[in-house]
Amino acid sequence: MALATARGSGFRILVTGASGFIGRACLAPLRREGFQVDAISAHPQPMQEGVSWHCCDLLDAQASVALLEAIRPTHLLHAAWLAKPGAFWTHPDNFRWVTASLELFRAFYRAGGRRAVGVGTCAEYAWVTKPCNERTTPLHPATLYGRCKLAMSLLLEAAAQEAGGSAAWARLFLPYGPGEPAGRLIPAVIEGLLQGHRVACTHGTQKRDFIYINDVAEALVELACSTATGSFNVATGQGTSLHEVITCIANQLRGMENIDFGARPMPAGDPEYVVADTSHITSVTGWHPKHTLEQGIQLTIAATRDRLLAKEATQ
Amino acid sequence: MALATARGSGFRILVTGASGFIGRACLAPLRREGFQVDAISAHPQPMQEGVSWHCCDLLDAQASVALLEAIRPTHLLHAAWLAKPGAFWTHPDNFRWVTASLELFRAFYRAGGRRAVGVGTCAEYAWVTKPCNERTTPLHPATLYGRCKLAMSLLLEAAAQEAGGSAAWARLFLPYGPGEPAGRLIPAVIEGLLQGHRVACTHGTQKRDFIYINDVAEALVELACSTATGSFNVATGQGTSLHEVITCIANQLRGMENIDFGARPMPAGDPEYVVADTSHITSVTGWHPKHTLEQGIQLTIAATRDRLLAKEATQ
Repeated sequence: MALATARGSGFRILVTGASGFIGRACLAPLRREGFQVDAISAHPQPMQEGVSWHCCDLLDAQASVALLEAIRPTHLLHAAWLAKPGAFWTHPDNFRWVTASLELFRAFYRAGGRRAVGVGTCAEYAWVTKPCNERTTPLHPATLYGRCKLAMSLLLEAAAQEAGGSAAWARLFLPYGPGEPAGRLIPAVIEGLLQGHRVACTHGTQKRDFIYINDVAEALVELACSTATGSFNVATGQGTSLHEVITCIANQLRGMENIDFGARPMPAGDPEYVVADTSHITSVTGWHPKHTLEQGIQLTIAATRDRLLAKEATQ
Repeated sequence: MALATARGSGFRILVTGASGFIGRACLAPLRREGFQVDAISAHPQPMQEGVSWHCCDLLDAQASVALLEAIRPTHLLHAAWLAKPGAFWTHPDNFRWVTASLELFRAFYRAGGRRAVGVGTCAEYAWVTKPCNERTTPLHPATLYGRCKLAMSLLLEAAAQEAGGSAAWARLFLPYGPGEPAGRLIPAVIEGLLQGHRVACTHGTQKRDFIYINDVAEALVELACSTATGSFNVATGQGTSLHEVITCIANQLRGMENIDFGARPMPAGDPEYVVADTSHITSVTGWHPKHTLEQGIQLTIAATRDRLLAKEATQ
């Protein structure tokens, strides 16, 4: 009986942003751990076995407090945030998400919640040229988004402290995979090459810590099951240049001749190096990512191909 | 004409918490710099030359936004916060002050404000055993109050970034002097000895960075006049043990025989060492504290004596 010994057995978890890139990927692994899963989305979702969907605008404090009091989850995975691609770096709605999320976390603990996991970002760190470490890398975010997320992590800790509850904060580096919003680097290159277009890129010297979405989801589930508190990098610990990532995609799609490296300028303010030290989460929870970049890209290409074919079939 | 060259000339500053320990001390030096001074208090205040008082509950967002739009200050010194002595370390109203202060800062910039100074705390740092430095000391507050204040500093920076405005954050270490709320160490020892009581103390080995209130006020005025951004320690850079501070008071009052060192236990969780590195504010603004501990204590004793005599006279 796998479920009888599963760590989520007997617990009820509420997942926010559950129709988004991060939240959606967590639903199946949470079920596998035995959690009863309640999922929040701003818009109606198709039915899904083992998941209770709730429509709720989390920016409406009264609505989210009422929902929490009705559900009374033991666990909360708060993946919802401003979801305007590109605009999120500077958008004033980041402030609304800070205050709404603070209300949500406090209402969760007031309604008997025990363990919350918040979703943060590598942009909470100062841009430095060595792997970001939770204890030693300066927390001096350069962006409005990074500042609001870091403030949120502190407010979550304070809310947990107020209630005698438990909380962890996951600083995601660069998740990619099926469901990643269109327009970001990896989906844009894959779609472009699959459709036979030329793809204009920067020189691609910037190094990033890309992590496959299912590995992110496993890390978030691990943190939900754990009692460890504080902030945790969720990443691979490997720096990969954008050039390497694009080359990996192009090699799998036999499309190198369609890549124009250096055809686009480096975006202003783009840091050269954003890579994690992952020793903390690994030593505390035992979690480690399971997919190599090649495997993750292969799965992402397959999913993108299926999606494009399905789209074609309905046209 | 001192005022014609004064740096605040032509500017209008709104001071919150202006009837409190920190805010009140800033009013006269702001006037001396030539600022037109508007002061907010939750309760009616006696008239004061050169200061326009406004009664406003800052936790009422609509009221504070309306006041800002009516006054349209160029500068804001936000010294108001939860003012429940002792309780502020853990009180849930810290959360209300975070959200209300965020509203206040954003409304300030929306109403044309240019430069805001927020008041933070040494409790934003991890408790470490060397001087706290703004760039290198880990920002891992241990308390609910410290977490909320650090979150606030990030939200102020984000609000300034949103508006293209300017902001600085003053991390106050241990201000003391006339007006310090009763019950804290220095007023308690002074009052006790002045009234001939015995005073029970800990062994007093803990080192702290005590700073005279007028030096704090000068630093805040300096930051208001500056364009420098980020966080700044406001302190002396000198670690003084509580034993030394109490001895300084007792020597001036010839009351050493009434001090019982070691009669009280160390409070649980009380850090051994809370001292600032002040090189940042000094190098950026030229500010440095002017009062030695002996001078500050002498002025505080004199003010306390006057207050007790006045109280006696009215009884």
